[in-house]
Amino acid sequence: MNRNDVTEKIITNKVLNDIKWCDVAQKVGLSKEWVTAACLGQMTLNAEQAKIIGDIFELTTEEQKWLQVVPYKGSLPSPVPTDPLIYRWYEIVSVYGTTIKELIHEEFGDGIMSAIDFSMDIVRESDPKGDRVNVVLSGKFLPYKQY
Amino acid sequence: MNRNDVTEKIITNKVLNDIKWCDVAQKVGLSKEWVTAACLGQMTLNAEQAKIIGDIFELTTEEQKWLQVVPYKGSLPSPVPTDPLIYRWYEIVSVYGTTIKELIHEEFGDGIMSAIDFSMDIVRESDPKGDRVNVVLSGKFLPYKQY
Amino acid sequence: MNRNDVTEKIITNKVLNDIKWCDVAQKVGLSKEWVTAACLGQMTLNAEQAKIIGDIFELTTEEQKWLQVVPYKGSLPSPVPTDPLIYRWYEIVSVYGTTIKELIHEEFGDGIMSAIDFSMDIVRESDPKGDRVNVVLSGKFLPYKQY
Amino acid sequence: MNRNDVTEKIITNKVLNDIKWCDVAQKVGLSKEWVTAACLGQMTLNAEQAKIIGDIFELTTEEQKWLQVVPYKGSLPSPVPTDPLIYRWYEIVSVYGTTIKELIHEEFGDGIMSAIDFSMDIVRESDPKGDRVNVVLSGKFLPYKQY
Amino acid sequence: MNRNDVTEKIITNKVLNDIKWCDVAQKVGLSKEWVTAACLGQMTLNAEQAKIIGDIFELTTEEQKWLQVVPYKGSLPSPVPTDPLIYRWYEIVSVYGTTIKELIHEEFGDGIMSAIDFSMDIVRESDPKGDRVNVVLSGKFLPYKQY
Amino acid sequence: MNRNDVTEKIITNKVLNDIKWCDVAQKVGLSKEWVTAACLGQMTLNAEQAKIIGDIFELTTEEQKWLQVVPYKGSLPSPVPTDPLIYRWYEIVSVYGTTIKELIHEEFGDGIMSAIDFSMDIVRESDPKGDRVNVVLSGKFLPYKQY
Amino acid sequence: MNRNDVTEKIITNKVLNDIKWCDVAQKVGLSKEWVTAACLGQMTLNAEQAKIIGDIFELTTEEQKWLQVVPYKGSLPSPVPTDPLIYRWYEIVSVYGTTIKELIHEEFGDGIMSAIDFSMDIVRESDPKGDRVNVVLSGKFLPYKQY
Amino acid sequence: MNRNDVTEKIITNKVLNDIKWCDVAQKVGLSKEWVTAACLGQMTLNAEQAKIIGDIFELTTEEQKWLQVVPYKGSLPSPVPTDPLIYRWYEIVSVYGTTIKELIHEEFGDGIMSAIDFSMDIVRESDPKGDRVNVVLSGKFLPYKQY
Amino acid sequence: MNRNDVTEKIITNKVLNDIKWCDVAQKVGLSKEWVTAACLGQMTLNAEQAKIIGDIFELTTEEQKWLQVVPYKGSLPSPVPTDPLIYRWYEIVSVYGTTIKELIHEEFGDGIMSAIDFSMDIVRESDPKGDRVNVVLSGKFLPYKQY
Amino acid sequence: MNRNDVTEKIITNKVLNDIKWCDVAQKVGLSKEWVTAACLGQMTLNAEQAKIIGDIFELTTEEQKWLQVVPYKGSLPSPVPTDPLIYRWYEIVSVYGTTIKELIHEEFGDGIMSAIDFSMDIVRESDPKGDRVNVVLSGKFLPYKQY
Repeated sequence: MNRNDVTEKIITNKVLNDIKWCDVAQKVGLSKEWVTAACLGQMTLNAEQAKIIGDIFELTTEEQKWLQVVPYKGSLPSPVPTDPLIYRWYEIVSVYGTTIKELIHEEFGDGIMSAIDFSMDIVRESDPKGDRVNVVLSGKFLPYKQY
Repeated sequence: MNRNDVTEKIITNKVLNDIKWCDVAQKVGLSKEWVTAACLGQMTLNAEQAKIIGDIFELTTEEQKWLQVVPYKGSLPSPVPTDPLIYRWYEIVSVYGTTIKELIHEEFGDGIMSAIDFSMDIVRESDPKGDRVNVVLSGKFLPYKQY
Repeated sequence: MNRNDVTEKIITNKVLNDIKWCDVAQKVGLSKEWVTAACLGQMTLNAEQAKIIGDIFELTTEEQKWLQVVPYKGSLPSPVPTDPLIYRWYEIVSVYGTTIKELIHEEFGDGIMSAIDFSMDIVRESDPKGDRVNVVLSGKFLPYKQY
Repeated sequence: MNRNDVTEKIITNKVLNDIKWCDVAQKVGLSKEWVTAACLGQMTLNAEQAKIIGDIFELTTEEQKWLQVVPYKGSLPSPVPTDPLIYRWYEIVSVYGTTIKELIHEEFGDGIMSAIDFSMDIVRESDPKGDRVNVVLSGKFLPYKQY
Repeated sequence: MNRNDVTEKIITNKVLNDIKWCDVAQKVGLSKEWVTAACLGQMTLNAEQAKIIGDIFELTTEEQKWLQVVPYKGSLPSPVPTDPLIYRWYEIVSVYGTTIKELIHEEFGDGIMSAIDFSMDIVRESDPKGDRVNVVLSGKFLPYKQY
Repeated sequence: MNRNDVTEKIITNKVLNDIKWCDVAQKVGLSKEWVTAACLGQMTLNAEQAKIIGDIFELTTEEQKWLQVVPYKGSLPSPVPTDPLIYRWYEIVSVYGTTIKELIHEEFGDGIMSAIDFSMDIVRESDPKGDRVNVVLSGKFLPYKQY
Repeated sequence: MNRNDVTEKIITNKVLNDIKWCDVAQKVGLSKEWVTAACLGQMTLNAEQAKIIGDIFELTTEEQKWLQVVPYKGSLPSPVPTDPLIYRWYEIVSVYGTTIKELIHEEFGDGIMSAIDFSMDIVRESDPKGDRVNVVLSGKFLPYKQY
Repeated sequence: MNRNDVTEKIITNKVLNDIKWCDVAQKVGLSKEWVTAACLGQMTLNAEQAKIIGDIFELTTEEQKWLQVVPYKGSLPSPVPTDPLIYRWYEIVSVYGTTIKELIHEEFGDGIMSAIDFSMDIVRESDPKGDRVNVVLSGKFLPYKQY
Repeated sequence: MNRNDVTEKIITNKVLNDIKWCDVAQKVGLSKEWVTAACLGQMTLNAEQAKIIGDIFELTTEEQKWLQVVPYKGSLPSPVPTDPLIYRWYEIVSVYGTTIKELIHEEFGDGIMSAIDFSMDIVRESDPKGDRVNVVLSGKFLPYKQY
Repeated sequence: MNRNDVTEKIITNKVLNDIKWCDVAQKVGLSKEWVTAACLGQMTLNAEQAKIIGDIFELTTEEQKWLQVVPYKGSLPSPVPTDPLIYRWYEIVSVYGTTIKELIHEEFGDGIMSAIDFSMDIVRESDPKGDRVNVVLSGKFLPYKQY
């Protein structure tokens, strides 16, 4: 058994029992983005959180243990994703990558926007021309140090 | 001559003359994100905008013409970017890709978040523990149609 | 169990029971292109459609549930397809890619032809020199927005 | 000098002199799709056609000779195209590839849709919800022979 | 079950029962090249042929059905083959590729040698310095059409 | 200067002076396949042959020297060729690769068909249904030795 | 069952029963290099040899049959090997590749060193500064033929 | 200027002046394998050796300086080499890689054969059935240490 | 059964029984870095060590045998690692690779830092601004030899 | 002109004038690791530092400006480095990658070792059995945050 097996069991139980990620997140008491990523094998849960997830998805004690182990991260099966929704995000990085780099450096100097001290919030914005997906990414700026 | 030559000239002139993207954007009258992307060879300018950019970066009339041609897009030299700042964005897509997919589908059903009817806003958020880069991505939801 | 298992079961039952895609499409009441893509794991069915498909291919209730989940899309096992029929399409994109780009931009300006608000129609055209495959692709033009 | 140099000169002259592909095609007397592909280095012109193209784009006699040589085809700089417009076509092949294969085989048996005995027609379709790009692809069906 | 399973069963039975491809071909009444390719999952058999193959390799009726379905073609596990015998063929394409292209275009003009309307004949040629493998490839020339 | 420069000069002079490979071969006194491959930078000429080629393509003494140096072989710009004519050959290796392997081993045992002690002959075969390209490949069988 | 299954069984039995390759080779009566390669699925045994190997590694008659079938060769799981010992050999080819090419051509002219009519001998050389691995590779020179 | 420019100049002068690697090696007083690798940009020369090489290939003082700088090593333009002579070496690593690993470990235990404390000797062996290329590779065994 | 199966069993038992690598290392009497690498399938244990590991992770005698076999090394599933923690190390090699090369050559001359005669020590350094991971890598310098 | 041109000029001047990195670092007043990385195009200098570097390597004012621009980082020409010294570091990441991950997580929990808030120190350690390269890597631990 490994973390991937637990992820697959969670997804299967979600499909068969019509579970919603936002409900799972509410029970855990954290954002839907972090909780979903954790359920999909990208984040590490503590014992209490693993118990809640375990109850929702009918996981054994052993499976709950795996949720508390830091996983090997990266959720995509290929370097360039084939799924259209995920590809659009890859395309944003491809088309806007150098722009993002220029503007962060102009504002902050040399360094990066952290993907670890990081949060993401996905919300629906109503729009008469068609509702929009708005996503807020927040990452701490980490400057390169001279030494 | 091609669009890439114009992009390189813009970057060179920016470096030598200490031009700032936010000033360029202000003169064009559009967001710094769109204008920077355009200067970096990813967007198409109209004649008036090309004139403004041309004046700032000392472009010839021919070079301004190239700014009005739709470019072959994609700003990165390799499928997986090596630059740490841009890689962090690739990593976000890699780690959170399936999470983003799940949550958008849960909210909207099958479809994508558009990378064309799209805008991006990069802002500094002051934080006593270290300032943060906050980025708002807004893309129209486009549903898959049955036919 | 996952969507891929359901796809394989559908294909196996199709082979063993000599089911035709055009008959399946007729029962679902949608085009053969969309219905086949859905059966092959690329589109999302609603409950009613899943029931029809389930009856045709002898799927369990659980399997029908999987048909209603948005799949991870992309149907090819390698970035450059090895199958000769599918490769010819890849070759068309390779040989005509820049031509398609030029002509759409000449007609519409900067933007894309949507692969989401999209339909496809494959028809046989009789021809004394050998029948032809005619395919009509229809995608909404989506303009890049300035912001 | 090689064919690629001629292609670049054609593109440069097109940009600087505001030449339109549909006008070029009209002068050559063939479809805009074939003529554009030829100008972009993917098709072979005869002497008369090369003369017409040469006059439009101010090509020397030597450059016109290159237009009459069969080029090494393939117009994209990477196996998976990065340009969003061209990527959408790649995505169509990726998502619908197995569907196209199934439906052509169901209708015609084992074989392929030719990319050589082939034509393409790109047209604008007015639509109150947003104009559409309609493309008709027509390829001769070539059956696999038993021997 | 899928076509690949049938191919593996055929190979296994061939090994265990010392079946020869030339004998199989003789029973089917077609060339050893086409029949072997069909047994290896690259060609489509009709019902009668599938029955003959089925009898030789002890295939069930279900397995015979799979032989009548057009397979996803391409028999190699990697883009550049590692097996020395097959690699030599890849090397011939690599070393002589541009030569083949030049000579076919010089003789026929722009177009291709079909790999669909195609046959192959592999024969032993006695030679006192060491016997030779002689292979005749025959493909219809398909000219690019102007339109 | 390197061999590649000489190859490009040969091709350029061929285009500008309407030279035919079969005429070049006749003057050298060898097959058109070997001579063309040599001119395209894949084979090594002796001094006398280099002189003949040099006269035809107006090469300097230095350039003729390069023709006598063993080149780094491989004529294609990518592992999977994009040019349709050459791709068809790659496809033949892909689709028939395991078949070729099986039939040569059945006839000769373990070993390979040499790509070094090798010749190729490309001929036109008239056919009322469309002329064919017939190619004869002849390679010495080289058995694996036990030791 | 396939050849790979037999290879895995051989390796497993070797580990569990502390069998040494040099002892296996001695029983077969051939070099340890060839016999090990054969056991690892890269060479083809005759019936008598397969019987000896079968007795050592407790193979069934069926499994011995697989040893007599020419395998699909290539023993590495990736184009660039990750194992440090094997990588060093890849590195030798990378660093010394052009040197080897130059020196063989200087001595023999255009052609190759055969990897088929080939033998390898790995021996320990005592050295007070640390023992050395000495490997002798012997391959027949095969000249390119003009035709 | 960089080391690669010097390598190209050396090769050009070698071609134009008919210089032989074995003569160069003799003048330097080291093996032809090491000296050729150094001339091809893979090894580092001291001042005295650089002077000798410089005299032979008419290098300037600046160019001789580059010969004394440790180069970025690796002499091949692609991970899998296309040149047939060099590919045969890659094939040996591919086919015999696991065999070499097994036999060195059987004799020496866990560790590697060094590619740094390493020498190579390429010699011609006369053989009535065709001369052979014999190559002796000698590398110090380096054991993995426990710590 | 193979080494990989044993590695997976070790990891599973570690997760289920809350075993710590530092405790395992203490029982073996070697560093936590070497012992963990060995448990993860990268190093070779002797019989005594395998017995200790076997007792801790409840391995059978057969499984302990596998721990004593030199494994095929390389612990990552892709050439560029996707896991953020491991990627940072890849990034250090990417960003600092040429720097490391320059400085080692400046200090030691041409050669390498051994990855075989090598040790690693990972320690926590307390720091009021956030604790640090300090890693000491120690590798013997191996000079390239002239010969 | 771009940053890469400046890097090449620095390297060229270093070679021709026998400049040592440790001397450059001393003049800048920072570590040799950071300064060398900056000179090799991986770090960003301030005006004062750029002036010092400029004086040492005879850079123009324009070139000094480029040193103050944040570069596109990543110093290696291929994902898997071919240079033996740098490859050994890649091999350490490959062989020890999962070990490093396990031990950092065991000590610190889920998170990463920063490659931005990072320093490196390369020192020679005398050793009678052969001097060693000792490298200390120090990176701040950054924990994944729940949100």
